[in-house]
Amino acid sequence: PRKATAVENKLPCTLEELYSGSTRKMKISRNIADASGRTMPVEEILTIDVKPGWKKGTKITFPEKGNEQANVVPADLVFVIDERPHEVFKRDGNDLIATQKISLPDALTGCTVTLNTLDGRTLNIPVTEIVSPGYEKVVPREGMPIAKEPGKRGNLRIKFDVKFPSRLTPEQKAGIKRILGGAS
Amino acid sequence: PRKATAVENKLPCTLEELYSGSTRKMKISRNIADASGRTMPVEEILTIDVKPGWKKGTKITFPEKGNEQANVVPADLVFVIDERPHEVFKRDGNDLIATQKISLPDALTGCTVTLNTLDGRTLNIPVTEIVSPGYEKVVPREGMPIAKEPGKRGNLRIKFDVKFPSRLTPEQKAGIKRILGGAS
Repeated sequence: PRKATAVENKLPCTLEELYSGSTRKMKISRNIADASGRTMPVEEILTIDVKPGWKKGTKITFPEKGNEQANVVPADLVFVIDERPHEVFKRDGNDLIATQKISLPDALTGCTVTLNTLDGRTLNIPVTEIVSPGYEKVVPREGMPIAKEPGKRGNLRIKFDVKFPSRLTPEQKAGIKRILGGAS
Repeated sequence: PRKATAVENKLPCTLEELYSGSTRKMKISRNIADASGRTMPVEEILTIDVKPGWKKGTKITFPEKGNEQANVVPADLVFVIDERPHEVFKRDGNDLIATQKISLPDALTGCTVTLNTLDGRTLNIPVTEIVSPGYEKVVPREGMPIAKEPGKRGNLRIKFDVKFPSRLTPEQKAGIKRILGGAS
């Protein structure tokens, strides 16, 4: 008998779930057929073991978990991992990217960036270098776990949005010229 | 008789030519046929009057200026305007975009941007506002001419690449904190 076309469903996961892994239980409704071909609806619970580091697009297949009907092999039921947007982090392959607002004086004189990781730790990252527009601070091995290389992780990359003052007094301008006039 | 497929050639123009207009003379070689069907090569000069404001992709058609051969109407010869890259300006529709490097103290305290226009004038553009990363200074009507609206022009948009100092002494850092510490 022919087999019905696979049924795909998105499985939206938070970045925290994809970071730490997660067990997701999915309740599905499907029709099953008895020997006479009569169908009846049933509910089932499927368990998906989301592994740390799984990416958007990862497919999990439950063979023949589609609706049953006479003379047709039930479809495979496929879940496709989707990634929910995160407030702080964007994922770039195995890396995580966070954009941090900092003031111009902090960009020039240094600061400490505080970030909460996806598994709930607090990172205090000292930034002592001058933060030019476009500068990226790389924190090694604080990115996403790599599913195929357990124990390994991507990097955390911090981008900066340097907030300039919106106005300066003539005295402040004179001071800046005096201090930075010859800097290079 | 059938007509041969049009022949397209690129006509690369500088931004200056597209700004001011230009008369381009193109020498072409083609075969012409006499009454008996015998063909012989000839050279011809075609004149293209590039109009101010023409855009990449503008087509100029010389009907039936392709090779002649027996029993076929010669192809149209088509020139397609292409835009050569310019050192200073990028074109965005009718606007021109220039990116200007400025030092951090200039970005904070003001400066004058000097630009040579595509028709050879010198613009001195005072920048008195604070130049944050991403800020764009718009100079009205200093963009490209608009071919279909003679006398009208797009804008010139100046983007800035703010060069931060690569290092600062402890004294400079202390001074910046003192001066900008409370700025907002």
